[in-house]
Amino acid sequence: MGNSFTALGSTSGMATTVTVWNEYVHEQENETVADIYPDGIHAVLADALEERGFETRTATLQEDEHGLTEDVLDDTDVLTWWGHTAHDEVRDDVVERVQERVHDGMGLIVLHSGHFSKIFKRLMGTSCGLQWREAAERERIWTVAPGHPIAEGVDECIELDEAEMYGEPFRVPEPDRLVFTSWFEGGEVFRSGCCYEREDGRIFYFRPGHETYPVYHNEDVLDVVGNAVEWAASGGSSDLPTVQNAEPREDIDTSDERSVH
Amino acid sequence: MGNSFTALGSTSGMATTVTVWNEYVHEQENETVADIYPDGIHAVLADALEERGFETRTATLQEDEHGLTEDVLDDTDVLTWWGHTAHDEVRDDVVERVQERVHDGMGLIVLHSGHFSKIFKRLMGTSCGLQWREAAERERIWTVAPGHPIAEGVDECIELDEAEMYGEPFRVPEPDRLVFTSWFEGGEVFRSGCCYEREDGRIFYFRPGHETYPVYHNEDVLDVVGNAVEWAASGGSSDLPTVQNAEPREDIDTSDERSVH
Amino acid sequence: MGNSFTALGSTSGMATTVTVWNEYVHEQENETVADIYPDGIHAVLADALEERGFETRTATLQEDEHGLTEDVLDDTDVLTWWGHTAHDEVRDDVVERVQERVHDGMGLIVLHSGHFSKIFKRLMGTSCGLQWREAAERERIWTVAPGHPIAEGVDECIELDEAEMYGEPFRVPEPDRLVFTSWFEGGEVFRSGCCYEREDGRIFYFRPGHETYPVYHNEDVLDVVGNAVEWAASGGSSDLPTVQNAEPREDIDTSDERSVH
Amino acid sequence: MGNSFTALGSTSGMATTVTVWNEYVHEQENETVADIYPDGIHAVLADALEERGFETRTATLQEDEHGLTEDVLDDTDVLTWWGHTAHDEVRDDVVERVQERVHDGMGLIVLHSGHFSKIFKRLMGTSCGLQWREAAERERIWTVAPGHPIAEGVDECIELDEAEMYGEPFRVPEPDRLVFTSWFEGGEVFRSGCCYEREDGRIFYFRPGHETYPVYHNEDVLDVVGNAVEWAASGGSSDLPTVQNAEPREDIDTSDERSVH
Repeated sequence: MGNSFTALGSTSGMATTVTVWNEYVHEQENETVADIYPDGIHAVLADALEERGFETRTATLQEDEHGLTEDVLDDTDVLTWWGHTAHDEVRDDVVERVQERVHDGMGLIVLHSGHFSKIFKRLMGTSCGLQWREAAERERIWTVAPGHPIAEGVDECIELDEAEMYGEPFRVPEPDRLVFTSWFEGGEVFRSGCCYEREDGRIFYFRPGHETYPVYHNEDVLDVVGNAVEWAASGGSSDLPTVQNAEPREDIDTSDERSVH
Repeated sequence: MGNSFTALGSTSGMATTVTVWNEYVHEQENETVADIYPDGIHAVLADALEERGFETRTATLQEDEHGLTEDVLDDTDVLTWWGHTAHDEVRDDVVERVQERVHDGMGLIVLHSGHFSKIFKRLMGTSCGLQWREAAERERIWTVAPGHPIAEGVDECIELDEAEMYGEPFRVPEPDRLVFTSWFEGGEVFRSGCCYEREDGRIFYFRPGHETYPVYHNEDVLDVVGNAVEWAASGGSSDLPTVQNAEPREDIDTSDERSVH
Repeated sequence: MGNSFTALGSTSGMATTVTVWNEYVHEQENETVADIYPDGIHAVLADALEERGFETRTATLQEDEHGLTEDVLDDTDVLTWWGHTAHDEVRDDVVERVQERVHDGMGLIVLHSGHFSKIFKRLMGTSCGLQWREAAERERIWTVAPGHPIAEGVDECIELDEAEMYGEPFRVPEPDRLVFTSWFEGGEVFRSGCCYEREDGRIFYFRPGHETYPVYHNEDVLDVVGNAVEWAASGGSSDLPTVQNAEPREDIDTSDERSVH
Repeated sequence: MGNSFTALGSTSGMATTVTVWNEYVHEQENETVADIYPDGIHAVLADALEERGFETRTATLQEDEHGLTEDVLDDTDVLTWWGHTAHDEVRDDVVERVQERVHDGMGLIVLHSGHFSKIFKRLMGTSCGLQWREAAERERIWTVAPGHPIAEGVDECIELDEAEMYGEPFRVPEPDRLVFTSWFEGGEVFRSGCCYEREDGRIFYFRPGHETYPVYHNEDVLDVVGNAVEWAASGGSSDLPTVQNAEPREDIDTSDERSVH
């Protein structure tokens, strides 16, 4: 059996297809948020990714199967995830489906308060806790790994005038690659750009994005999201067996009968 | 708030306390297995760890709460886990409890077919699949990280005359540290000793241990299990906050009211 | 200052340029080797990479500055390195030059006995020792990370009928990503495909390639070398400062005069 | 051949022996520094480590072989390194000797401006560059890995009123484990506590320690140095072969004569 390694969009010459998922609750219930994101955070993100050359669609909590049907996922190279207040309303079977797709090579970009989403906690195996404060304070997102593709085009740091603070300790596994670290005006730091691989899938956690500040209208932030999509689409999807009772490659005695299977 | 970092047994001068968990099904149902482990795999492991200076107790699937009550876990520095045929019978709430204990600093040693246990899959975030074959073939477990404490006293390799084969790809996250890699007579290799950290807890996956071969009567294998217990007990258990709305350290304006919380 | 991140060939739409470096001693002195590689190992590798769509040139120890002048390196996205018997004859200033290029983003593929080259030892910081045996024995190179781009198109394993054995412990830092692990007929294992990043540069060590066996005539091996070149060219080359006396971003008192600089 | 794994002091029941190395130039030439460290930085560090239960000695650049003779290193479990203005005066043969000792299991704690020392650059394989500023500004060293032994007893953060700023990007390999990250008043962040392993040796880079500010009179900083010594002494020193022409473990045909060795 070979590793046919279905190339995702970005490496196959076809456009990478991104599904932008949003819980889409605050925007419909809170005026401050609605003013910033009248059509939802997902609309702004999808537009920005479309501009950067990706095929995009959106999906929200309220849709059937949260908009993440097998058909949609069949046509998704990279999924971005934003949620905050309704993590518990996401169906476990959909979470399991998304997790399996990640294992099979789908990229996943988890944004801001998505650190507490079911899907991120399941993929990390930890509580994903952190410290936080809403004080509209200044944040600087420093590039720690300047040669990493996700940092392409990013200055030494991205400066946001108004941000929610997230502070350490961030209860996640040590990232495979730490790309960004944030400085906050109030005195804290945070590992704000973290790469992971889980089976064939690439995962990037990116911190910026609070709902009451216009963070996703910042072009530098959107550039990073675009880079992350590109990076997450650049892995492969192997078709090597995942579980298999294997024939020996060498000529050995296989007559042992002591199995309890 | 300080990080009082409750030292586990091994660093506090008190004996490290190990709970040896076993599914304990094959030994009661299959004669071949019963001949090798008349009192169960847990009994052999517990004796071996006792001899190596640890305080041990055992717990099995059949006990109330699988023997893993809050009280038992309160008094457990390191938990070892053996399961094979009854992974699905382990209660989800007990799995969650064990996972939280690992996050809080309890060590966990996952043995052999425990790769498919609920607790290991939850901590890894992957399917933990692998290739396998039961042919009583020869295995050599090579030391890849000779300076690691878990390799202390281990020769270049441990040779087992009869082993079940486990083959790559092993669907786990890249280990923080790979300590052993196995060679099999039939032609395969396997990453057989893998270290992970998940929050404050240290996890070691160790491959040897099939139920129909007398692997846990091998003193070299038992030495490694003992080393792994020692290593897993050498982490800490911090009491830094996991989630917290934090006061600023610098004098900043905190009057922003745009919260949706 | 921005991170203009000069895209290497593979991502810029221009062909990736590879310089294939070879010590080129055995082929001129030993008949067995000359029969297998009449124009040198570099010629075979360069042809194979050319066929796979890369622009290639070769360079050898005997050339002025070993063929690795500033001009040549200016036009090199990825350098491949084969050496065995003459590591000590490579000039230190050329090694230093290559090391700096790797830091600046040039990819480096180190092949087989190149594990003991000056450049690899300098980039790893370790002795890079290993065990070895020349017995023309069978090797299977197993894919451990099937979703990694370097494993694209590779079967579960590549089988070589005649190989030199390399065995563990391999004295290198823990790889950032382990892609392949070898099985040997004589009983050993080896981490035979190891990814590293050093500053902006990507490095891949790939084990196969002994001079007295026709390993570089194996298309599967050559496919992996091609994949590795593609991967190593996919990083970036940032122009963020490497050392800099930085102006503060916040308004702080900078009047302190207690410097000894 | 076995892995006798000579236990270092900390695990053998004998006291861990630390050699505190200091360049010792500023203290003899600059009044500000002399006022803070009248007997040298090494004297303050050695006293602090002695108080924490280690056997200590000091060694300086000016001594014969910089005080790092074979005999001294034979009796050193962990070496701490402080240098700044005279890195180039350290003899290459002594650096090589220290590197070999690290490979053999000696711990190494590299402090502050030691990031540019020959020994650290050799072990990292990178330039180890960073951004810097001397403005006596506030620094907070945040605990990122609260369960790590080096963080034992450390609060959420250590606050220093006056510090030199070190900023990202820090040109080192991705740490095996990042334990601390610094926040600076002027707006930057820095990975200030980084763990590495190179062969059998454990290495910890710890940022605090500028010569014109009394950083090594801070008990929290000294506690971390003590923890780091303990951690670095807890690895092993294996005696498995580093390079070896190995006999096969399986019965294979070893009659091949095609060697060029």
